[in-house]
Amino acid sequence: MDTLYLTDLLGTGVFAVSGTLTALHKKKDLDILTLFIFAFVTAVGGGTLRDIIIQAYPVAWISDANYLLVIITGLLLAVACRRWWLGFLHRPLRVFDTLGIGIFTILGLEKALHVGVNPWAAVLLGIVSALFGGVIRDTLANETPLVFERQLYATPCLTGAVLYVMLLQAGLHATIGFLLSVAVITVFRLLAIRKGWSLPPIRG
Amino acid sequence: MDTLYLTDLLGTGVFAVSGTLTALHKKKDLDILTLFIFAFVTAVGGGTLRDIIIQAYPVAWISDANYLLVIITGLLLAVACRRWWLGFLHRPLRVFDTLGIGIFTILGLEKALHVGVNPWAAVLLGIVSALFGGVIRDTLANETPLVFERQLYATPCLTGAVLYVMLLQAGLHATIGFLLSVAVITVFRLLAIRKGWSLPPIRG
Amino acid sequence: MDTLYLTDLLGTGVFAVSGTLTALHKKKDLDILTLFIFAFVTAVGGGTLRDIIIQAYPVAWISDANYLLVIITGLLLAVACRRWWLGFLHRPLRVFDTLGIGIFTILGLEKALHVGVNPWAAVLLGIVSALFGGVIRDTLANETPLVFERQLYATPCLTGAVLYVMLLQAGLHATIGFLLSVAVITVFRLLAIRKGWSLPPIRG
Repeated sequence: MDTLYLTDLLGTGVFAVSGTLTALHKKKDLDILTLFIFAFVTAVGGGTLRDIIIQAYPVAWISDANYLLVIITGLLLAVACRRWWLGFLHRPLRVFDTLGIGIFTILGLEKALHVGVNPWAAVLLGIVSALFGGVIRDTLANETPLVFERQLYATPCLTGAVLYVMLLQAGLHATIGFLLSVAVITVFRLLAIRKGWSLPPIRG
Repeated sequence: MDTLYLTDLLGTGVFAVSGTLTALHKKKDLDILTLFIFAFVTAVGGGTLRDIIIQAYPVAWISDANYLLVIITGLLLAVACRRWWLGFLHRPLRVFDTLGIGIFTILGLEKALHVGVNPWAAVLLGIVSALFGGVIRDTLANETPLVFERQLYATPCLTGAVLYVMLLQAGLHATIGFLLSVAVITVFRLLAIRKGWSLPPIRG
Repeated sequence: MDTLYLTDLLGTGVFAVSGTLTALHKKKDLDILTLFIFAFVTAVGGGTLRDIIIQAYPVAWISDANYLLVIITGLLLAVACRRWWLGFLHRPLRVFDTLGIGIFTILGLEKALHVGVNPWAAVLLGIVSALFGGVIRDTLANETPLVFERQLYATPCLTGAVLYVMLLQAGLHATIGFLLSVAVITVFRLLAIRKGWSLPPIRG
């Protein structure tokens, strides 16, 4: 229980850092409050949408102030060390961010299964948890979300989520399934970015 | 009851087909997963938003896996026969899609009235059910939703929804009111598209 | 209680007027139904989002038809007198709109505190109540929301909201805290617009 909670907080902080840096990288002349909005939406957008759809109230950051404190810490850290992060910390950050996406996919999937969502929808909600913070952020900033453009963005999440459901149904212990599925998502996604893999396009 | 459920599933499938084809028509190089997101959002976006606003939990596709199966079937059917659909099946599809909009408007209105929403808001929620799947899809894809540009998009839905409320209050049987109102929306909308009807613009 | 209700209705009407005029000012050839959508989203978008996040059902305009009547009245009034509003009524409207933003910030904050939200999140939800009607409207219309561009848009709301929480914790009577905080938001924001104040930009 405690491990899950700390993992969730850590993932939130990582997403706040990467949300801030994405905004700094793309836009100029943002002030600290605007940066906070980007960090906040990136960090809690996907999980909040999932909780509303499956009626899993209260939403985490509503009942527990630690989430906002972690986001503000992530924001300040990202702003203070922004030249490092965008420089020689660029690669470690991407690994971190990808790990965060893996963790949030399986945590979201598990939460959905836990409240009785059917497995097909639960897989989808896992992906929503991990990717829709970024989608909402891009939509509010009037940009096309990456998930609609770059091909191999959602595929690793889908693969890992389906794997997790199959491992559970095969009787594997949840923790081992969790670690395996997160590893598959992370490695698959890092390789896909590096090698430029993509699904074949379908022409109209 | 069973008829309503089957109608709802059928409408979901039709919206999945038209969502996929709209995406294929507008964008190039989409892969199957991106197409699924378009199909999914088009098919369940409006109804999910309605259910969240009126607290009508559980959302249909969360508790019943048939909705996702119908969407995946619609997606595969649309991809497999995409040249037929965009060719000589273009007109039948538009009739089908318009029928789907009519059905979703009145189904959504009825569901809202059923949980005690006031009639003015219920009419609005009927329109949201039918049109906001497309609105959310266009917004995520960074396009201006048609409802904000082409004039006669929401008017037939409004007309049919108001008619349905008036017929119910006049004591007509719900099923007859349903059929009449859906027919009015469908015919009105097909005529409006064909004749290029529009409401008069208001200049600033 | 009655005063709060009437204040809320009045604020809704003011937002419907300013939503309609913003749409008329920016776009051409909008018909009355499209204008209604803009007025409606501007007026109830922020409050609806807040209520869904904190599970404060039923959403106001769902259970009480007066909200929609006020929005329709505001819409018709704005359309009928649009030349006056955009002409010599331009300044009074901005004062009115800013007052509406002040009132909605503190009303939203209070509602969130009332259902047990932690103070940090409650401050955020107050700002969401006041500003996200406009954000959703701009996003649907495929424009970048002002809150992501013009610097001093959210700062006065944040200042007033934090002040209100501090006054309450210092033991001040809620009504006096309400009036003081709304005054601070309104005066701060009007001055910021007039003087072109902005927070210092952070460069990437």
